[in-house]
Formats: sequence, C-alpha cells, structure tokens
Amino acid sequence: MRKILIIGLGKSAPYLLKYLLDKSVSENLFVSVADLNIETAKKLIANHKNAEAIHLDIFNETARNEAIKNSDIVVSMLPARFHIEVAKDCIKHRKHMVTASYVSSEMQTLDDEAKTNGLILMNEIGVDPGIDHMSAMQVLDRIRENGGNIILFESFTGGLIAPESDNNLWNYKFTWNPRNVVIAGQGGVAKFLQEGTYKYIPYNRLFRRTEFLDIEGFGRFEVYANRDSLKYQNVYGLENVKTLYRGTMRRVGFSRAWNIFVTLGMTDDSYTMDDSENMSYRDFVNAFLPYSPSDSVELKLRHQLKIDQDDIVWDKLIELEIFSSTKRVELKKATPAQILQKILMDKWTLDQKDKDMIVMYHKFGYEKEGKKYQIDANMVVVGEDQTYTAMAKTVGLPVAMATLAILNGKIKTPGVQIPITKEVYKPILKELETFGISFNEKEVPYLGYNPLNN
Amino acid sequence: MRKILIIGLGKSAPYLLKYLLDKSVSENLFVSVADLNIETAKKLIANHKNAEAIHLDIFNETARNEAIKNSDIVVSMLPARFHIEVAKDCIKHRKHMVTASYVSSEMQTLDDEAKTNGLILMNEIGVDPGIDHMSAMQVLDRIRENGGNIILFESFTGGLIAPESDNNLWNYKFTWNPRNVVIAGQGGVAKFLQEGTYKYIPYNRLFRRTEFLDIEGFGRFEVYANRDSLKYQNVYGLENVKTLYRGTMRRVGFSRAWNIFVTLGMTDDSYTMDDSENMSYRDFVNAFLPYSPSDSVELKLRHQLKIDQDDIVWDKLIELEIFSSTKRVELKKATPAQILQKILMDKWTLDQKDKDMIVMYHKFGYEKEGKKYQIDANMVVVGEDQTYTAMAKTVGLPVAMATLAILNGKIKTPGVQIPITKEVYKPILKELETFGISFNEKEVPYLGYNPLNN
Repeated sequence: MRKILIIGLGKSAPYLLKYLLDKSVSENLFVSVADLNIETAKKLIANHKNAEAIHLDIFNETARNEAIKNSDIVVSMLPARFHIEVAKDCIKHRKHMVTASYVSSEMQTLDDEAKTNGLILMNEIGVDPGIDHMSAMQVLDRIRENGGNIILFESFTGGLIAPESDNNLWNYKFTWNPRNVVIAGQGGVAKFLQEGTYKYIPYNRLFRRTEFLDIEGFGRFEVYANRDSLKYQNVYGLENVKTLYRGTMRRVGFSRAWNIFVTLGMTDDSYTMDDSENMSYRDFVNAFLPYSPSDSVELKLRHQLKIDQDDIVWDKLIELEIFSSTKRVELKKATPAQILQKILMDKWTLDQKDKDMIVMYHKFGYEKEGKKYQIDANMVVVGEDQTYTAMAKTVGLPVAMATLAILNGKIKTPGVQIPITKEVYKPILKELETFGISFNEKEVPYLGYNPLNN
Repeated sequence: MRKILIIGLGKSAPYLLKYLLDKSVSENLFVSVADLNIETAKKLIANHKNAEAIHLDIFNETARNEAIKNSDIVVSMLPARFHIEVAKDCIKHRKHMVTASYVSSEMQTLDDEAKTNGLILMNEIGVDPGIDHMSAMQVLDRIRENGGNIILFESFTGGLIAPESDNNLWNYKFTWNPRNVVIAGQGGVAKFLQEGTYKYIPYNRLFRRTEFLDIEGFGRFEVYANRDSLKYQNVYGLENVKTLYRGTMRRVGFSRAWNIFVTLGMTDDSYTMDDSENMSYRDFVNAFLPYSPSDSVELKLRHQLKIDQDDIVWDKLIELEIFSSTKRVELKKATPAQILQKILMDKWTLDQKDKDMIVMYHKFGYEKEGKKYQIDANMVVVGEDQTYTAMAKTVGLPVAMATLAILNGKIKTPGVQIPITKEVYKPILKELETFGISFNEKEVPYLGYNPLNN
C-alpha cells in the first residue's frame, strides 16, 4: 500500500478524497486525512477501508514529523502560510509534497535541497493558480512548436455563482474567501502591457477600466485588471510579448456598482472607524458623506456620485439594505472593509442549494509567416452543490491527479515546481476532461486592441 | 552682548535676521548665522556690526557643540529632521531653543529634561503651525473667559500666489516645497468631526469635497480637508466640540482640476515608472489611459474622465503642456508624483517679480446662555518680492519675536512648548500687527452646517 497523507481538510477535500478513494483499490493507496477536527473527514471517508481520519495538531512538531515520516507523499491543504513547515519536514524525511498555493519566497529557497534529494515539491496546482497555468502553457507551447511567435496573452478567471442560482442584482455571491473580494485590487497600482506599452491603473479607476468577454451559452462577462499581470511573463516565456494582461471576471455591471464602495472609501482596510460597534448600516454610509441637518443619506450619496434616479446601480445598493437604520454593524473597532464585508455577507452568502461556477478565459495572439492569428479558449465549470462546488472540483482534482502521478513516477522532475511543463499539464488536462473540466478553443481573427477589428 | 545662534539659513532668514538686527543695538544682541554655505547669509547681514556668518557643518559634532556652547539662545531653521540633535546639545549646554517645525515624538521626549533644567524648547512658532495656533487660541480663550461654550472650530491656511502675480488658469504657483503639494492628502483617510459625527474622506474624494470661503477684498477661496483635523483637539481644549475641521485653502477651481491627476494616478509616489527617463509628457499621460491604435491621448482622457469640450478644466491641462510629445521627463526611475512635479514646476515656478500670499481663515462657533454665535477671523499677508515673501515673513517674524522674548524673560515657562499660552501669543500677535500681520475678525450669525442659515 502507498500511503498518502493529506494535512488539513480544506474546502477542496470532497473531490480530492473522492478521486483518491475511487482509485485506492486499483492503485493500492491508503489515504490518511490529518486535521485538528476530524468529524468532516470521517463523514467524507464514510468507513472506506483504504482511508482513515487522524487527529493532528500541526504545531505539534513530533506528531507532524511522525505522520510525515510514515507516508509516501504529503498533500498540504493548510492555509498557505503553514506549508513551509510541512515542506521542510518533507525534505527531512524525503517525501514528495503537493500544494495548491502560490510558491512563497521561503518555499522557493527549498528548491536546491529538493533537487539534491530527488524530491518534487509541486505547488500552484489548483485553479488560479493551477488550471490557468496548465491550459495556457499547453496552447503557448503548441503555438511555439508550430513556428508561431506569441505577441499577445490575456488570461482571466472568475469564481462566480452558477446561472441557476444567480438571483441577485449583483449577479454575485461569495463562493470563496469574502475578505479577498472586498480588498481586491488594493496595495498598489495595476501594471500591464498593452501593444508594447506599460499601462498603469490606480485603485480608484480599477473598476471603471473593465473589458467585456462573451462565452457561448453563458453570456457576457466583464474583467478588471489584476495587480500582477506581469508575474508569469518569464515563467511562461513571454519576454517579447506585446500585450500581457491578467484579470478577474465578474458579471457585467458588478464593477460599476462596486466602484461606488471604492469611491466612498468603504473598502479601506487601513484604519478602524470610531464606535463601529454601535453604527447602523445607514450610519456607516453616512460617515463617508457630508453632514446635513435635512438632506437624506440617499440624496447625499446620489448627489456626490451623480447617480440618476433610474440608474440600476441604485437598486443594487437598495438590495444590500445599506441604508437601513435598524441593521447594526456590531463589530468592535472595525475597518470600513470589515464592515462592508459584513453587510455583503448578509446578502451574498450561498443558500443551501446554490451552485457556484468557475469561469476562465484565455486569449493567445501570435504571428506566423507575417500574418497574425488569435486563439480564444474558455472553460466553465458549474458546481453540484455546496459541498461538491466548482471551486472544490477545480482545485481538488488537479491536486489529486498530481499526487497520484508523482507516486506513479509519471511526474518526475524534482525541485520546487509549478505545473508549466508538458510532463505535468498534458496528462492532467487530459484526465480533467473526463471530469467535464475542458476548454472550448477556437481560432478567431486577430483582434488585438484595434476597435476597427472588433 | 546676548548671543543668538541661528543654525541653518532657510527661506525665512530675511525677516528673521532683519528683525533681530534692527533690534540688535537697543537690545544688545549679537547674531551668528551658521550654515554650510555662508554667501547668502553674508549678503543679508551686509556688514552689520552686530552679526557674523560662520561656516558650520552640523554633522561635525565638535563644531556644532562649540557654536551652541558659545551662544545664549539657539534658533534652528534646519530641515525638521535635524532639530533633535541641536535640541539635545541645547539641553547639554543649557540653552533655550526655537524652531518653526512640528514637535516630533523625539523632541517631545526631551520635555522632562528641559523642564528640570529650566529650558524652553519652543516649536511650531511659524505659520501653520504657528500663527494659526496663536490666533486661534486668542479667540478660543476669550470666548471661554466670557462664558461661551465652543461648539465649532474650523481653521484653514493656504500658501498662494498674490493677486497681482496670479496669471495662470490654476491661480496657483509653488511658493514653498512643491513636493508637499503633489503628495498632499496621501497616506491615510481624512477624518474630522461635523456636528457631532466623525466623517471620513478617502484620498480619491478629497479634492471633490471642498467648501468655499470668501475674504473681503480677496474674493473666493476653496478648502479641502487636512488628514489631521483632530490633531490639536486636546491641545486647544476642544474635547466637547461638535465640529472640528482643518483644511488647506486654494483658489476656487484648483481642486476640481487637481482631481484629474489624482484620478488618473499621477500623484502616486509608491512605484517608479518603466523607462521614465525617455518618456515625453504625452507618454506619461498615455500610460494612465487605455491603448488605442487610433484615438488621441486627448480624446481618451476626455472620455475616461467625462470632460466636456467647453469645460475650463481642459484649458488648465493644456496650459501645463501635459500633452506635449516633445517635452521630455528626463528623470530616471521616477515615480508618477516626481514626474508630475517636474511638469508643474515648468509652469508654476515663481517669476522674478512674483509675490506670494499667505491666507488664513478661522471659524469659531459657540453657545452662550442658550444662544449660538459665530466669529470669523481671517488674515491675508502679501509678500514684497521673492526674498521678502509672505511665507518668510509669517515664519521668520514670530520665530524672531519668540527668540527675543525668551532672551528677555518674557516667555518663561520651561519645557517642549508650542505657542498656545497667553504668555506667548499675546505679545507676539500684538507685535505682529505692527508688521501688518493682523486678523480681520467679525461676528456673524451662527451658520454651522445648516444650508438654510446660509
């Protein structure tokens, strides 16, 4: 029996476990799920003979080392900051390791040691990062192998609500960490490359500089720029590309409404508001508007932001009940961002039967023999329910597949890795297709940024 | 002879020196001006028998100590961060000290030692901070002594261009440190009190939330909020005030145009722009706008910020030549703020004959016997030329007067001080009047924030 140790249960566990347990007999696997709380793990395992849930406090060094020593490969689904300790133990005990998180600078420093010991530390193999790397590299490599010269790469991902559960005016619910949504785009200018020029978008313009994308059968989406469009320029081999742009997908109209919060200052996470605990939602809004003894909070907001009486954006605010004088913040020493998050969670939390949806869209522009071409590729994954979500599926399955492939020696390049090589992406993307995770790819006329081409 | 040591020449030196030299015979003073470069000092002293210019490198500890030891009082006109070393030496050699800068936290820690040694370390005795403290406290103390209960205090200051030199569309030129103008309002939310409620203005709204002020004979001004409106709440004894608001004065229309720079991201000082050295001004603007193969930078900007063809704000941009493709940035690894500063300095630098102007406006609201009252007080000081500026006068004279008053034992309370006590503000404000620095004070109906009262 090959022993797989999964540390930390995480939201992706349902698919991760299901995949490994389904293969456990034919592949001779035994899966140990280690967490502080093992109730959920037990439920998911459901007395499967090739699995166990074990109690583990990851801060207990002895217990952690013992568990890692007794395994053949380790999957860390802990919060990202805890991976490094697990990774160090893995090197000590000569075990491979898999995570879905971004490679931290600390993780990167383990590269030499991992290589020396012939160990694979595979990271970023979930979704954004993960499936985006694999699907992008597959097309980029193919274009280059066929003699094409990449001139444009754009990549967009969104964690959204499935059409059948899309029943609010924002066309949005929280399907992952709400805090990341509230503070998205903060902390620095968004920088990207457009037709050979660096472009910069400050936070206050980020949600007004959106672009549209259409996906057949799913309608229109919008994207706003990520801060880090240039992050993978070298990793993807795009040093000479003219356009490089990464962004986040939302349904059309989300960003224009969200910009109201940005403009008023409600997404600021840098200071706490006076007496936040006793504020009503209305008081919260009013703190960002001038005092008036007579004018309503509503009219002051409409006037400050020049919102017409028949603008749909207004209905979006009303839907959130942000003008309520009876709903209370009830958070001590809270930042504006924390208060806004609470207000949104009242309305944007998934209902029991809600399904989520992961959407991804890549554009590849290239030149070949003096002509320009473009390939668009997109992927839509809809969740089954609140346990078997699209997010859990697109994170859990690639992690599980990479784990088995490493065990089986199909992925064998040692070091701190991300899934950008054929050895990794080819078999995994192929297998993901059998689970309905596939890209719809088509050749389109090269558009670039010339509106006359559109 | 009483020896006054002035360390660092500074822009306020002309008035500071003139005042002290004019009194030097009757008051038996000898003034030493110590700086690295003594040419300007020599010119200002013009062979006056009671003064000398001495060469001093303030980083030379021995020389600095020697100079301080040989004086009776020390005036530091160095950049603010260097005061602390001088202050420590002053305590060591038991000398009083005067500066026009804000009390740093390091300076504050010297309070006990200063008191123990009977030494006065007087700070913030220039203009904003300085004359604003003194003029505000004089009225606040009087209202309270007459049984009034302060409910509102607003205070505004502006360093502007005199009407006779006001010949650009922005009605603005740099009369002090340009960098402070470019990055004004950054680094945190502007928080203030309005009719009992805390209000918060994020940076992206700061220049749109202005208010107007009229000064007889000088027309209309606008103000935008300072970040630190609550800074002197306790110092001024305004714990129970309903409205507390401090701001910066500009001519009407400045802020609306300035907001274009803020919105585009041109005032950002947190990152350097790619290849800034070789950018034209037009390239700089274009970096904040979407790429287009055909649309002009001008039209893209008009469209992004919705600027009509007949909006005066556009002429303000044209006047700065920000769309020039021949004018070059020529700054290596420059931040947007540094580039914008260069563009503005082309146009906003004082001409040889230009005069500056300091404007100050206080509003005091109070209750007495159930009725509400308001006093408005304002001051305008116009400079004489580019040496004898209004800024030099309003900084240099109070510093000089405080220095002599300390020497003469008229100011005697020891410790780290700012000019908020009668002992300080009464004689100095009275003497400032003889130099034309006076407040125009009038009782007005209590306005508060009720537009029906306006």
